[in-house]
Amino acid sequence: MASSWVPDMDPASDFSLANIPFGIISTTADPAPHAAVAIGSFVLDLKVLSANVDLSQIFPGIDGLAEAFSQPTLNAFAQMGRAVHRRVRSALQDLLSKKTAHPAVLRDNAALRSQALLPQSAVRMHLPMAIGDYTDFYAGYHHAYAVGVMFRGPENALQPNYLHLPVGYHGRASSVVVSGTPIRRPVGQILPDPAAEPKRPVTAPSRKLDIELELGCFIARGNHMGDAIPVGDAEEHIFGYVLLNDWSARDVQTWEYVPLGPFNGKNFATTISPWVVLADALEPFRTRGIENATELQGYLKEPREERVFDVRLEVDLTTAEGTTTTIGRTSSRHLIWSFPQMIAHHTLGGCPLRPGDLLGSGTISGPGGVDERGSLLEMTENGKKEVQLAGMDARTFLKDGDTITLRGFCGEEGARVGFGECRGKIYSAVQR
Amino acid sequence: MASSWVPDMDPASDFSLANIPFGIISTTADPAPHAAVAIGSFVLDLKVLSANVDLSQIFPGIDGLAEAFSQPTLNAFAQMGRAVHRRVRSALQDLLSKKTAHPAVLRDNAALRSQALLPQSAVRMHLPMAIGDYTDFYAGYHHAYAVGVMFRGPENALQPNYLHLPVGYHGRASSVVVSGTPIRRPVGQILPDPAAEPKRPVTAPSRKLDIELELGCFIARGNHMGDAIPVGDAEEHIFGYVLLNDWSARDVQTWEYVPLGPFNGKNFATTISPWVVLADALEPFRTRGIENATELQGYLKEPREERVFDVRLEVDLTTAEGTTTTIGRTSSRHLIWSFPQMIAHHTLGGCPLRPGDLLGSGTISGPGGVDERGSLLEMTENGKKEVQLAGMDARTFLKDGDTITLRGFCGEEGARVGFGECRGKIYSAVQR
Ligand SMILES: [Ca+2]
Ligand SMILES: [Ca+2]
Ligand SMILES: [Mg+2]
Ligand SMILES: [Mg+2]
Ligand code: NI
Repeated sequence: MASSWVPDMDPASDFSLANIPFGIISTTADPAPHAAVAIGSFVLDLKVLSANVDLSQIFPGIDGLAEAFSQPTLNAFAQMGRAVHRRVRSALQDLLSKKTAHPAVLRDNAALRSQALLPQSAVRMHLPMAIGDYTDFYAGYHHAYAVGVMFRGPENALQPNYLHLPVGYHGRASSVVVSGTPIRRPVGQILPDPAAEPKRPVTAPSRKLDIELELGCFIARGNHMGDAIPVGDAEEHIFGYVLLNDWSARDVQTWEYVPLGPFNGKNFATTISPWVVLADALEPFRTRGIENATELQGYLKEPREERVFDVRLEVDLTTAEGTTTTIGRTSSRHLIWSFPQMIAHHTLGGCPLRPGDLLGSGTISGPGGVDERGSLLEMTENGKKEVQLAGMDARTFLKDGDTITLRGFCGEEGARVGFGECRGKIYSAVQR
Repeated sequence: MASSWVPDMDPASDFSLANIPFGIISTTADPAPHAAVAIGSFVLDLKVLSANVDLSQIFPGIDGLAEAFSQPTLNAFAQMGRAVHRRVRSALQDLLSKKTAHPAVLRDNAALRSQALLPQSAVRMHLPMAIGDYTDFYAGYHHAYAVGVMFRGPENALQPNYLHLPVGYHGRASSVVVSGTPIRRPVGQILPDPAAEPKRPVTAPSRKLDIELELGCFIARGNHMGDAIPVGDAEEHIFGYVLLNDWSARDVQTWEYVPLGPFNGKNFATTISPWVVLADALEPFRTRGIENATELQGYLKEPREERVFDVRLEVDLTTAEGTTTTIGRTSSRHLIWSFPQMIAHHTLGGCPLRPGDLLGSGTISGPGGVDERGSLLEMTENGKKEVQLAGMDARTFLKDGDTITLRGFCGEEGARVGFGECRGKIYSAVQR
């Protein structure tokens, strides 16, 4: 990978020239949310670029980009399809590289640089897409297995359907928020003594507030209602990826979820990282997922073997006092279903996907010990054991004032393709 | 109720002067979808009215109506809140009544009438709202009980949480369609022999395509994330009601739904009636819901006893040959939870509702025999018994070519408050 002329490129940056993720920013100069890409510790404001440069020179043959980059979401750009995303990313990589073919446009244009290239600390990030529908899958095999063992024992850990289809449920699109948004501890109906009969629920702040470490996938182009997306075509419907924290109130969820699935236990908030890593940027990091010995239905048979990505993932917990502990480390390779398989299954019966729809992978955990887990439920065996934190502190579930930060990246120093942060701080249910 | 000067008012019409439901139409003269109300067998085009009349005369003190009525959805109007809906409906009732205070505006203005008052047969109906999120509840007590008996026996018919909270799940907003939209039979993973071990699923068109007779509720104003809507305030957040058919593929649902709830068994289509009956129009038809002897949590305690509406509901099945049989007759009074209770529960943990969000009541069945049921699952005991149709035909589940029409109304002849039709015809899964 070539190197960039952008100042202060840190080799450890998630946003190397190999990445070029897209996001929605607002700035002091232009408070209306609009498109940008991240590069090192800077952003390139694509609306400013569009207003000052003849885009047909840099992105020949692509119409409508200036308008798409002025929108408050990336939906219009996503809809243009993967071929366009590929060409735009590649042209931006050229523009930002030392050996750019168009040095006069930006590299040697101090006036435009001062307007268009802004420190990340100087911009505000917004939700990158208008999310029509959000679906959360359950493709983290080790998570599903560990949770199954906890509640049903090792014999029946996985439900009979688990290896035959990507189990998922419809989430709450309105509750998806961008990294940094404060998360209020939800109040809910919970059973103080789940074993007691008759059941005596109370209404109280959740005492089992948890996280779920997930990869999120944004849809670029959808399908018409009634038509399925074949698994071999699904890749063309993907815009890109984000980190996703599916906050979960385990006590609320346990009481409510039979028979129709999670509801208030999940719908109070889901946090995503602000930068959408384009599907093409992750291509070099493909790997095999979890082997599934089950004979799959034809519509789930993917031609390729390297179905998932090896994104190294980390979960940090920062206490109200400011002490940070990395409580989990794993990889997105621990998925038993790929996003193309999820898309093929989602649309099998004709369900229409739309540009900007969000799919969650399900909680990602590694096969190893408690330090490879993507939820406190697993790390603490549903609150039975404590996770030890730096500074003599410990947790079963989250405390008010805790901040959770997810991080994820692929690749070597100097050419990292990373996601930045997916962060949320818990505030009290009773502060009104 | 006064009578209307609109021609050909049929006393059996759902759209008497007592109703005035809002919808989105397009016309030959104006193919861009925009707002209208239904009156008798006509519609009053509110965009045409706005363009030709000084609205401040008819709706004094309400700003922004002309713009709201030009939108392709009713969301902007819904957001204005119940006080505005009430005044606008009441002013339109005056305008359309024989003794209108403003005869010159429309009653005696032949030129405007010819443009603004159009036969319903001459306009096309569209989805009335942009639906951000769709939630389906399970508040039809007799349905939940009957289905529970079928699968778990009478001892355990209701799950332990059922009487404590309004059970619901997140549905698929993208698959909500307006009455008349053809419904393709979904393909899905199903178990030809559910008892066989190991499980051997196949991928095939659903053989258990079913309906669910529901009442739908549209949200007028939402809540900020983190804030709950108290049950006593919830009424002010309701825009109005529609009929809702939550098409369900029972064989797909059975195999997929443990542990995360219905997914492909539901997300291929949900049909709603096109006219939104405003909350105020249903007020005169309040009644007590199903008694719930459970001690409710405080947030679910509704001040009033008449918590639900007595909408008389009917399900018609029309065969491909054109023979129609009314297979079910019941009432929306058979709900154990009111929409304000559903809203209070939905937002208890801070989940944000937005204008245009749709809530389904859950399948509504009466306490009586198979002719009071809102699903074929119940009418046929999951396919064990046939429903007899006119013309020596019979059904367990739906056949290709079948049309299902839901109807619902309150009130006496000449002053009916009805919903019109919620209709969908099944076409084959294999016609591509
Ligand atoms: Ca999840
Ligand atoms: Ca339903
Ligand atoms: Mg969530
Ligand atoms: Mg449905
Ligand atoms: Ni949704």
